[in-house]
Amino acid sequence: MKDLVSKVLKGDPHSIARLITLAENNDPVATSAMKDIHPHTGSAHVIGITGVMGSGKSTLICELTRLFRKQGKTVGIIAIDPTSPFSGGALLGDRVRMTELAMDDGVFIRSMGTHGMLGGLTSAVYDVVEILDASGKDVVIVETVGVGQAEVDVIKIADTTLVIVVPGLGDSIQTLKAGIMEIADIYVVNKADRPGVEQTVAEVESLVDISCSGKEKKIPVLSTVAKQNKGIDELLKEIDKHKKHLEKTKEFEKQRRLRYEAELVEIIRKRLMNFIFDESTFKDKIESLINQISKKQVDPYTAAEEILGKILK
Amino acid sequence: MKDLVSKVLKGDPHSIARLITLAENNDPVATSAMKDIHPHTGSAHVIGITGVMGSGKSTLICELTRLFRKQGKTVGIIAIDPTSPFSGGALLGDRVRMTELAMDDGVFIRSMGTHGMLGGLTSAVYDVVEILDASGKDVVIVETVGVGQAEVDVIKIADTTLVIVVPGLGDSIQTLKAGIMEIADIYVVNKADRPGVEQTVAEVESLVDISCSGKEKKIPVLSTVAKQNKGIDELLKEIDKHKKHLEKTKEFEKQRRLRYEAELVEIIRKRLMNFIFDESTFKDKIESLINQISKKQVDPYTAAEEILGKILK
Repeated sequence: MKDLVSKVLKGDPHSIARLITLAENNDPVATSAMKDIHPHTGSAHVIGITGVMGSGKSTLICELTRLFRKQGKTVGIIAIDPTSPFSGGALLGDRVRMTELAMDDGVFIRSMGTHGMLGGLTSAVYDVVEILDASGKDVVIVETVGVGQAEVDVIKIADTTLVIVVPGLGDSIQTLKAGIMEIADIYVVNKADRPGVEQTVAEVESLVDISCSGKEKKIPVLSTVAKQNKGIDELLKEIDKHKKHLEKTKEFEKQRRLRYEAELVEIIRKRLMNFIFDESTFKDKIESLINQISKKQVDPYTAAEEILGKILK
Repeated sequence: MKDLVSKVLKGDPHSIARLITLAENNDPVATSAMKDIHPHTGSAHVIGITGVMGSGKSTLICELTRLFRKQGKTVGIIAIDPTSPFSGGALLGDRVRMTELAMDDGVFIRSMGTHGMLGGLTSAVYDVVEILDASGKDVVIVETVGVGQAEVDVIKIADTTLVIVVPGLGDSIQTLKAGIMEIADIYVVNKADRPGVEQTVAEVESLVDISCSGKEKKIPVLSTVAKQNKGIDELLKEIDKHKKHLEKTKEFEKQRRLRYEAELVEIIRKRLMNFIFDESTFKDKIESLINQISKKQVDPYTAAEEILGKILK
């Protein structure tokens, strides 16, 4: 196990992949390893990238990663979107891009399905971010579809969050209005070669004007055509600028603290739920209470109070 | 309070709305009321409707509701999609449909935002389903965008789940493959007047063939044009058929039990997290642990174990 940890810290891809799998499976070895790697976390720049399906997030991530690599930075990519090309559904152009990245030792790609991980996704992603950070990756990119609540939970540990919108996808603007807005540090209007791009940029900018009114810093809105590698240099500059801003204003430290807090909350939640529902201690009691609830002999709230009374000091 | 409960049980819209708001705000009055209404729950047919944005879910729900009303059934609608027309963003055609429904005493519509309810949405939706069920609604419809994990959590308490796809929205088929499939009881290819409908139906049917191979019952695939009220009669028949199938095979009872179980789990989760993070008892301790985690003096897993040691028997 010590061997696994030291290999992860040295950036060995096989050991990283193994520890991630152990963490996903709630293996006790993973818990012990996670404790050991903690002192080595906190240096990576965590970038969250979110946007509806079809907004070209994966292509954008490929192009960004290529530029980070040119700067000599190592990159970890966590794709949570289950329909992401990183998860196997790649079109030809994407596949070429991805093969190039996959061949590069300085890039580690992991795709995670929401599927079958009910309630466990958030904590698993937090673990993977820590593992990639500890493994020495300079940049950790987390990709989500950014519609659901769990996805927003995931992205909140990012230092810099990019929200991607696309001309003609009215949905993407609607999503912004619905609450994704407040997590954005940078807006990207991708597929900017499509008709209607001016209108989309104007719409996003007017949303930014409303949400940033009175604030010192205005959220930047950039246009890109990721497929043709247009606007990616400017985007990278804006990302670097945001990072420098975080460091200068001590926001980076504050964000790091929020990330650890989110992790702590998530570990506690997971442990408690496992303790109550996976341990055989309570199985019969819970089974019998659910029967009583079904027969209307007791209500769910009273049943919950009974179980809590048994476990809490 | 007794007055509030008895009014809710009589179906009074103002009292229903008030109890829902109390429940959303975690008001103790709501907990007490929820206990009282439990014996009156379990009769409503809970229908989950999910599909990506732009698939026409809201229009479909309007048309279905109109038919349920013709049958003399009362309907409760819970719209969780934050971009749903029920939440205010309606187009003209939808607005006319919705006004008609909103004027009808036999219909209760509630839209719920995921926004600002981190971790609390699921339990709030469960409460609203119980309240509408207890208020005597024959049918309770829950609408979600069905991409995120929280949305799938919500839909799992439905007796009958409709998954909506649309020709030309490749995303929607991708989403199916990504895991939404297993929750579907009925597939609806909506906007069936669009080009490519045959291909979409064929794609969905081939997915159904794979997922239902060896099973006795094949999941039906229907085509509708909700806007023109086409295919809605057939859809309603299919929904009724599914309900009858549930009742005949005792699945209805089993599903009811699963619903109560999901509720119990959710109440326990919420109570525990409130107990740990909202009570002033642990505030200082947690604050100091997060500081130590940030300084690498302790890791999040050890910190979590310390807190759990303080609260668990």
